[in-house]
Amino acid sequence: VSGASPRVVIVGAGFGGLTLARALRGTRFQVRLVDKNNYHLFTPLLYQVASALLDPAEIAQPVRKLIRGLDNCDFHQGTVVELDLDQRRVLTDQGSLDYDYLVLATGSTTNYFGNRSVEERSFGLKELPDGLSLRNRVLERFELSRWEQSASKRRAMLSFAIIGGGPTGVELAGALAELINLVLPKDYPDLNPHEPSVQLLEAADRLLGTFDPRLSQAALRALERKEVEVRLGAMVKEVREDELELEDGSHLTVGTVIWTAGVRGSGLATQLGTATSRQGRAPVGARLQLEGRPEVFLIGDLADAGGLPMLIPVAMQQAKYVARTLRDLEAGRQPAAFRYRDPGMMATIGRNAAVAQLGPIHLQGFLGWVMWLTVHLAKVVTFRARAIVLVNWAWEYFFYDRPIRLILRAGNNR
Amino acid sequence: VSGASPRVVIVGAGFGGLTLARALRGTRFQVRLVDKNNYHLFTPLLYQVASALLDPAEIAQPVRKLIRGLDNCDFHQGTVVELDLDQRRVLTDQGSLDYDYLVLATGSTTNYFGNRSVEERSFGLKELPDGLSLRNRVLERFELSRWEQSASKRRAMLSFAIIGGGPTGVELAGALAELINLVLPKDYPDLNPHEPSVQLLEAADRLLGTFDPRLSQAALRALERKEVEVRLGAMVKEVREDELELEDGSHLTVGTVIWTAGVRGSGLATQLGTATSRQGRAPVGARLQLEGRPEVFLIGDLADAGGLPMLIPVAMQQAKYVARTLRDLEAGRQPAAFRYRDPGMMATIGRNAAVAQLGPIHLQGFLGWVMWLTVHLAKVVTFRARAIVLVNWAWEYFFYDRPIRLILRAGNNR
Repeated sequence: VSGASPRVVIVGAGFGGLTLARALRGTRFQVRLVDKNNYHLFTPLLYQVASALLDPAEIAQPVRKLIRGLDNCDFHQGTVVELDLDQRRVLTDQGSLDYDYLVLATGSTTNYFGNRSVEERSFGLKELPDGLSLRNRVLERFELSRWEQSASKRRAMLSFAIIGGGPTGVELAGALAELINLVLPKDYPDLNPHEPSVQLLEAADRLLGTFDPRLSQAALRALERKEVEVRLGAMVKEVREDELELEDGSHLTVGTVIWTAGVRGSGLATQLGTATSRQGRAPVGARLQLEGRPEVFLIGDLADAGGLPMLIPVAMQQAKYVARTLRDLEAGRQPAAFRYRDPGMMATIGRNAAVAQLGPIHLQGFLGWVMWLTVHLAKVVTFRARAIVLVNWAWEYFFYDRPIRLILRAGNNR
Repeated sequence: VSGASPRVVIVGAGFGGLTLARALRGTRFQVRLVDKNNYHLFTPLLYQVASALLDPAEIAQPVRKLIRGLDNCDFHQGTVVELDLDQRRVLTDQGSLDYDYLVLATGSTTNYFGNRSVEERSFGLKELPDGLSLRNRVLERFELSRWEQSASKRRAMLSFAIIGGGPTGVELAGALAELINLVLPKDYPDLNPHEPSVQLLEAADRLLGTFDPRLSQAALRALERKEVEVRLGAMVKEVREDELELEDGSHLTVGTVIWTAGVRGSGLATQLGTATSRQGRAPVGARLQLEGRPEVFLIGDLADAGGLPMLIPVAMQQAKYVARTLRDLEAGRQPAAFRYRDPGMMATIGRNAAVAQLGPIHLQGFLGWVMWLTVHLAKVVTFRARAIVLVNWAWEYFFYDRPIRLILRAGNNR
């Protein structure tokens, strides 16, 4: 019907999808946001849930709460099972939604590069339940070790290997090392401090491969000061019970393996009828549209937009671009092509140390950490969450005391 | 060996076990605390986790943190699988512990009175995972209802029946009604406010049967003001999919059934070689000892000590009594018999209303609520948890806005 509000379905309430919904506020589009979870996850702090520093509710916010102010937007929780691009319909496990414009922003999942042993025997760190599982695992290992008489068995039990020296691996290694070296000894007075260990394995010859090499060096030194054993040039071949085999044939005794060495575009990429990139992303044109489907947009990690990195700023800038483009299309204007402005990047290595690369400005050590804290605190979504995160961080900073250490299985549904 | 420290094993880190460990601080006993979880749960506020007002970490504290100041006490996480009373040994799923004195404080579990349909199809509210499961269920039902076209199906989906009009049932009914009537409409602007419903079913002819009848009346009125449908004299016969059958033959359409109608002594009671009471509790003598085993004590819900109620103050007073008695026995003194001093009881019905019965003082309405808030806040275990609980309560009180509404499956292990 001419004059009716065009229906925009956005799949995914991550940084891309949520930013787009907000950017369409006050327009005549009728926006429908769909996600398999009912919350938006602040993924940069997920490693802090895994290391028992933050609680899930501090880094996740209900989507409905985040879109309360948007009169033209509603939310449906559901998992997309099929896309009918010809009929312009999204089918989910709960029901289907018709669209005039479709924006896919389903992000990425852990990439095991086809290594079954890694997939089956390692912990990922991508979704909120991953963070909780890992937290449970770490704390359980320490509890179990209190029953074990053999020192060598305790050492194996308390050894943690993180595979992948990108920002997630570096940040998790720093946080785990601090949990183990500074916090847990208070709770385990009988623990021999030489028994637990954290290793970080990276296949390349330096950490943080996308950063300036001097910052990679700074990160390496900061981790080593925290007693993380860093192995560069270490390619993992197979994960076995309590053991890791490297490509060079060497074996490491490791009780818990955490895989942060890669992500790939979410499964939806394969349902679009186009070939996907090596990273499992679906190619889009200069206006982020699917080829031959000008009404279908892809943004964020799912979209291969000229090889842009899988980073939050990319997704957010693309979301704002799509909002402008939708308005242009409705008004009959020709939209400009998408252009990315790189705002820089940063990674933290526990208390007092971080590396930040913001255009010409490179920061490390304490200054980098203050920058990291400021930027992340400003971004945590609501004021209330911000206040609680700050209380927890301050507490931990002054008392070396992680407040949250419950081993918690959530209930099965019944 | 004469002169060696007597070994006290305490099974259960609830209110009884934890109080006992603390009361033995500074004595020459070597205390070993065992629990299947690594946390102590503040059970009186569990219904607030179920109704999405509090997060798990706000009502649970790691046991190790709570016993940090106790030099003569350590903690082992494990589930007791067998008691070898002759060899004075506790066998757990992780290892075994020898004792000179054993104190069993394993509390109680949900009692379904043998009704299989209730056990299989209803939600309990006794342990922390129960609270999380119920929270997930309530929020999931609301999300699902957004896809449902039929109003009658939505009404069934959004109907919640709580069985059992004791303090837990009354408090949960009040909190759920407020969540549904005051908070969720903000997140679900399209929700018809007449579709969701909360029912409270009680087999007796009044709520809060252990309170003064006038306070039962006050609780009934407070719940009805919050639009809870209270049915007295309603005995449940069978729970079926989306339906409840009562003993009088009537049927109710109910999407979610929550069972708070009874508890029984924990499974350990049946491993002691004595007959258990109707409530599944094991009988103890005037000094809380197991008959014929003066070195084995039972306290709290697990112990049938002359029919005392299953209440936290009973467990805590018994814990302090056992600490004194252990010192008496070691000193060769004859211990006095245990005597219970009733400190009163209270129950809250959401915002601004509670009933409290403290000896001759009976409070209701807002005054009762202030009393309830003061007592509970003072008891939440550490300062930090207290501060966060207070922030959340204040936020909710002023903004009618439950902050925590994530539907969260915790990770299976891995």
